[in-house]
Amino acid sequence: MADSIKKVVLAYSGGLDTSVILKWLQTEYGCEVVTFTADLGQGEELEPARAKALMLGIKPENIFIDDLREEFVKDFVFPMMRANALYEGLYLLGTSIARPLIAERQIEIAKAVGADAVSHGATGKGNDQVRFELGYYALSPDIRIIAPWREWSLNSREALIAFAEQHQIPVAKDKRGESPFSTDANLLHTSSEGKVLEDPWEEVPDYVYSRTDHPEEAPDAPEYITVDFERGDAVAINGEGLSPAALLAKLNELGKRHGIGRLDLLENRFVGMKSRGMYETPGGTILHIAHRGIEQITLDRGAAHLKDELMPKYAELIYNGFWFAPEREMLQAAIDHSQDKVTGTVRLKLYKGNVGVVGRKSPYSLYSAGIVTFEDDRGAYDQRDAAGFIRLNALRLRLLGRRDGR
Amino acid sequence: MADSIKKVVLAYSGGLDTSVILKWLQTEYGCEVVTFTADLGQGEELEPARAKALMLGIKPENIFIDDLREEFVKDFVFPMMRANALYEGLYLLGTSIARPLIAERQIEIAKAVGADAVSHGATGKGNDQVRFELGYYALSPDIRIIAPWREWSLNSREALIAFAEQHQIPVAKDKRGESPFSTDANLLHTSSEGKVLEDPWEEVPDYVYSRTDHPEEAPDAPEYITVDFERGDAVAINGEGLSPAALLAKLNELGKRHGIGRLDLLENRFVGMKSRGMYETPGGTILHIAHRGIEQITLDRGAAHLKDELMPKYAELIYNGFWFAPEREMLQAAIDHSQDKVTGTVRLKLYKGNVGVVGRKSPYSLYSAGIVTFEDDRGAYDQRDAAGFIRLNALRLRLLGRRDGR
Amino acid sequence: MADSIKKVVLAYSGGLDTSVILKWLQTEYGCEVVTFTADLGQGEELEPARAKALMLGIKPENIFIDDLREEFVKDFVFPMMRANALYEGLYLLGTSIARPLIAERQIEIAKAVGADAVSHGATGKGNDQVRFELGYYALSPDIRIIAPWREWSLNSREALIAFAEQHQIPVAKDKRGESPFSTDANLLHTSSEGKVLEDPWEEVPDYVYSRTDHPEEAPDAPEYITVDFERGDAVAINGEGLSPAALLAKLNELGKRHGIGRLDLLENRFVGMKSRGMYETPGGTILHIAHRGIEQITLDRGAAHLKDELMPKYAELIYNGFWFAPEREMLQAAIDHSQDKVTGTVRLKLYKGNVGVVGRKSPYSLYSAGIVTFEDDRGAYDQRDAAGFIRLNALRLRLLGRRDGR
Amino acid sequence: MADSIKKVVLAYSGGLDTSVILKWLQTEYGCEVVTFTADLGQGEELEPARAKALMLGIKPENIFIDDLREEFVKDFVFPMMRANALYEGLYLLGTSIARPLIAERQIEIAKAVGADAVSHGATGKGNDQVRFELGYYALSPDIRIIAPWREWSLNSREALIAFAEQHQIPVAKDKRGESPFSTDANLLHTSSEGKVLEDPWEEVPDYVYSRTDHPEEAPDAPEYITVDFERGDAVAINGEGLSPAALLAKLNELGKRHGIGRLDLLENRFVGMKSRGMYETPGGTILHIAHRGIEQITLDRGAAHLKDELMPKYAELIYNGFWFAPEREMLQAAIDHSQDKVTGTVRLKLYKGNVGVVGRKSPYSLYSAGIVTFEDDRGAYDQRDAAGFIRLNALRLRLLGRRDGR
Repeated sequence: MADSIKKVVLAYSGGLDTSVILKWLQTEYGCEVVTFTADLGQGEELEPARAKALMLGIKPENIFIDDLREEFVKDFVFPMMRANALYEGLYLLGTSIARPLIAERQIEIAKAVGADAVSHGATGKGNDQVRFELGYYALSPDIRIIAPWREWSLNSREALIAFAEQHQIPVAKDKRGESPFSTDANLLHTSSEGKVLEDPWEEVPDYVYSRTDHPEEAPDAPEYITVDFERGDAVAINGEGLSPAALLAKLNELGKRHGIGRLDLLENRFVGMKSRGMYETPGGTILHIAHRGIEQITLDRGAAHLKDELMPKYAELIYNGFWFAPEREMLQAAIDHSQDKVTGTVRLKLYKGNVGVVGRKSPYSLYSAGIVTFEDDRGAYDQRDAAGFIRLNALRLRLLGRRDGR
Repeated sequence: MADSIKKVVLAYSGGLDTSVILKWLQTEYGCEVVTFTADLGQGEELEPARAKALMLGIKPENIFIDDLREEFVKDFVFPMMRANALYEGLYLLGTSIARPLIAERQIEIAKAVGADAVSHGATGKGNDQVRFELGYYALSPDIRIIAPWREWSLNSREALIAFAEQHQIPVAKDKRGESPFSTDANLLHTSSEGKVLEDPWEEVPDYVYSRTDHPEEAPDAPEYITVDFERGDAVAINGEGLSPAALLAKLNELGKRHGIGRLDLLENRFVGMKSRGMYETPGGTILHIAHRGIEQITLDRGAAHLKDELMPKYAELIYNGFWFAPEREMLQAAIDHSQDKVTGTVRLKLYKGNVGVVGRKSPYSLYSAGIVTFEDDRGAYDQRDAAGFIRLNALRLRLLGRRDGR
Repeated sequence: MADSIKKVVLAYSGGLDTSVILKWLQTEYGCEVVTFTADLGQGEELEPARAKALMLGIKPENIFIDDLREEFVKDFVFPMMRANALYEGLYLLGTSIARPLIAERQIEIAKAVGADAVSHGATGKGNDQVRFELGYYALSPDIRIIAPWREWSLNSREALIAFAEQHQIPVAKDKRGESPFSTDANLLHTSSEGKVLEDPWEEVPDYVYSRTDHPEEAPDAPEYITVDFERGDAVAINGEGLSPAALLAKLNELGKRHGIGRLDLLENRFVGMKSRGMYETPGGTILHIAHRGIEQITLDRGAAHLKDELMPKYAELIYNGFWFAPEREMLQAAIDHSQDKVTGTVRLKLYKGNVGVVGRKSPYSLYSAGIVTFEDDRGAYDQRDAAGFIRLNALRLRLLGRRDGR
Repeated sequence: MADSIKKVVLAYSGGLDTSVILKWLQTEYGCEVVTFTADLGQGEELEPARAKALMLGIKPENIFIDDLREEFVKDFVFPMMRANALYEGLYLLGTSIARPLIAERQIEIAKAVGADAVSHGATGKGNDQVRFELGYYALSPDIRIIAPWREWSLNSREALIAFAEQHQIPVAKDKRGESPFSTDANLLHTSSEGKVLEDPWEEVPDYVYSRTDHPEEAPDAPEYITVDFERGDAVAINGEGLSPAALLAKLNELGKRHGIGRLDLLENRFVGMKSRGMYETPGGTILHIAHRGIEQITLDRGAAHLKDELMPKYAELIYNGFWFAPEREMLQAAIDHSQDKVTGTVRLKLYKGNVGVVGRKSPYSLYSAGIVTFEDDRGAYDQRDAAGFIRLNALRLRLLGRRDGR
């Protein structure tokens, strides 16, 4: 494999692992390395990545640092939220949804700088390698992909640090030992897995949580908020209009304070194994519940039930890395078609880990108190109609009953 | 319609409404009335129903009072829980799942006593009329059904009470006024709807909750419990084996104490309108979460994802009253087939409205720490395999990319 | 019900049944009748309908006769064909797809003339009443609907003819007796049902077929044709560009000559019963097969399989009359999204009832002979990748196998 | 890879390719080779395979030749037919369904003889390698798999023949040149692909067809047959009871004579590419149509539509090689549950490539002429019920219409 690569775009965090990869690409492939560092709201300074890249010999014009937070929320998180997507019934897909954006931007850079390869730091047992690489291939079918973790022999912490020291890569003291778990973070969530989390019978230790306050330590009084939606997307909190990223950041702050959005999950990876992870999705959890709330009052039953039936497949596609596949786009087209009138306001109660809808209203409400109650309903509902409705729905069951005589 | 009915079996609660129906059936149809009162764990004494029926002239041999709690949980609630059924993403179907059992027993009684009709007290705007009557028709295709609320003219509280007084039906003082909301209860849940709940923007008043303590008043310390499963069904709590009904009652007690299982929902009825309800499903909520937890460690991905895809339709069928339809049974066959090894123990944390899995273990675990980590994995996972896996999964996307050149 | 209707728009064919309805509406409701007669390619002259309406006292300005053939094919048949829709695996939905267009135009007229009601001649046991009325209600929620067959007492042929004679409605001699079966026709198909077709064990008599030559009498030599598609829709036959209706008419001619498109079906009606019908869909059958052919070479697997999974529900929605429902539109949005590159040419062989694709080509072909064979494939396929692909796909099965030890 | 295999069970046809594999396994791996040759109705003598294996040095006790025809039809073809399975709308899965049985038996033999590996002759670009190997892994998770086509360098016809000559493997004269296409055959079908079929615009040459007479040369008179079903499976033809394999053979004979069951398909392989194949499935095509026919009269609508919705996924699972996966078994459980009363007789017309149902009857018929017509229907159908049925089905559309005012 180590042939003829001229220029490679590396998804670079500035951390030890991707710094080792950077150097390994230079030494193993003898190629020019372009670094790409994205701000997806992971909460880390990006400029140190620039300094480190420079120090490792990357030319200034080969260092790309982009703030993708608004694009991330607007074009990835929000479309997914329209679908009420949950993987395996529970997981809000915080890691999965970030990968296609990184891949997309990385390919854009590769095209701009004339690179013939891309590289990432995902391991060979995880889902992220699949998500990155399916994105790369979809957007640049003939790109070369270098996945160091599947190729090299630096498969222990010791080997990695030895390589770093050999190549003058600074190793922070706190990175020398094994971390007790690994994390991934962006504006939507923080995930933690590995090591101390590997026994699925053991409760996740308190110190693993970084993104949410412990429910037990959350305020003793509930907090009420409103979220306004327009055409399926959240646009304001407590009446204050916010950009997508600002809105999600605000929800994260609220969710954090009230200990909302923790999930201990044993999930099925696309590569065939089960793994245990812990997810913190404070704002996303509120958003998910709020979106369901606004749909309740604005979405037709047929549309809502079709969405529910399509959702598991949609979530699976995102989890498995098929964001750029035609079938994901088809499902998105169906989902988006349903959101035209998903506009209005949801009121939510936040309290010690709980988030629930307590009220919803909409200029496009399909709820009619007049029909539900026994008041005058403009002739929309004649109770005698129910008899015919039931009898025709029952007809096939009666024919079955006559035949099979239970 | 008021022709030629000889004997009718009435689903009789002993309350004012069904007492009026009882008398109305006698006067309007001139037929013999058989009362059927079921204990589904609604938490009311049933013997007063017997006394009241006797007082209203029902012959002792025409009074049927059955304790169906075990059957309810074992044959209805548990199969539904195996499916992880949620209607519209949130509702645990507590009312829906009780109706087919009532219908089934009512038809058994009708056959035993030679009745030619059955009757129920569900109104003409709701789902319950559909659920009862689809059950009746499926099990006794030629039965006559009398649905007084769709037939009579007693459509106001005043008319009902006037009829009661005219026919010497005792009216409790607290039943004279309009109740501020109506409820339905069984071992799985209590639902509340109507009147004070009809404005979906208004928060549910505190006094509507009857089945769960307010999360704010729940204990300040979390409680940990274990639930043992065998072949998909819960069999023990904290190691203590319990019958299905006893187990659900125990979970209800735990859920109540910790304020678990409240749901404020605006839902789509089968009869075509939206309605707002409040549900309290304390034990059922714990059971639902626990069952997902045990499936996580014992269920294959293919089985789990198929279950997730089938679930919305399964839940819709139950909600709409099609428990006895072949397609519900087919889905149940598929679901039950998957539960053979869904055996093990889930550990849960209960705290102020929250319930979450914190640990799971099973003699049939499919989780392999050895594969997920980098230790020796008996050759089950070669990271280089991932490259081929990704490349073949990407092939069609690459062909698309070459054609469409994004 | 016979109250206060001022003006009604009747779907009027000019035949005996709808002429009787016309008169019955005048006498029973005392209302002004507006007739609407549509040319959907049923192959009948429409001007006699005008003359008859005038004769029955309809004002000239109240007579609407529209040629809807192009709209029918372009906006209804073609979108459905994009979905490869088959009801119950076999039926091309020729009747179902015509109803929403009729309903739509009828409501347009009702709005234009200020009518407060619409009426149709569909019976109370069939699907068409549902399709018409769901269309009416969706497009004009407060319209009054008069369905004479569910209301009147003219339920025998004799009563109908007596009413006609009493009201000076001319009755053609050949309409005096009972027809041995009833038919519906439009540019897409002719359906036949009832009477001689009611025994599902008896073969459909030869004389029932009207739209296709008997395969046994079709030419002894096959005929080859090409159909060109653009973005999922057929646009040319044998290289000759044709409008949608002209194209379907041409395919009908070809299909008729070769005895293509006959279907003897026992189907499930939405109203709960089974019925037996015979359908002749000559051009539509060719179109269906041709569309599958062009998709084979231009559509991605993920898109194609998603379409196949969604199709049964889509077909059911059309069959049941839910053309104007949001969930049908959502599915259409998904389907249409997939058709962007469904462009190219299909070659078909027509022979004595058979139609099959024998060749397909496209400027957007996803088929790559280079990849499938062992020639140079630009590195797109490395056979060793298959090993990794299989091993990761197998991983969960191996874990299951180790656990369950078959 | 060429390490430490002691004994390998090879799926051996006796042909040139698998004979080369046999020798290659001996020389490359130095292991003992066990041959397994199955009669799945491919229409070839099996004893020559024994002679050839002996000649190539296989010990007599290491030669396994099994007649699996009955098991093939009974346990694989029939369950699949119950599902009405069609891959991509058209393909009856004749190759796919044979692979799991071969894999199953091969693993049984491996366990019986204490082999540590299995091997097959499928190439690295096709689906069959996946189907074989998923079967092997599911049934024997730790088995070693040798796929010579992915490993060796004999990738041209010349290299293969040179190897054969070098190792004294006899090469029939007609095998020296390249075959113009390759085939796979069993009792259900013959498939042809490659070479002359690789241009999807070119019609399949006449000489490729081997299993069916040309429709143009089929009898000029139609032939009528009956097929009896019991619980979803065919049991008799023209009243004559036949074993599963004998029945399918008889249908093949009938289908061949009438030119039935040819399919020219461009399909999507699981490994990511499109390929063009030609399938001949004479008896299977008749069986498929006949099964739909008997279901029409015996299967409830809810069951039938659920089956139609599940079918594409079921077919995809079989095509992709997941016969032994839990989700295929779950779907089978659902499907089989529906077949309990799928019993009766279908009458079919066979004529020059066409097969169609012309009559169906059943002791468990759900068709009721009495309900469909206007005769006395025991009160099962009151046309006025349709009004209520429609109005409640329309309610949500009316609410939408009022809101959105199309």
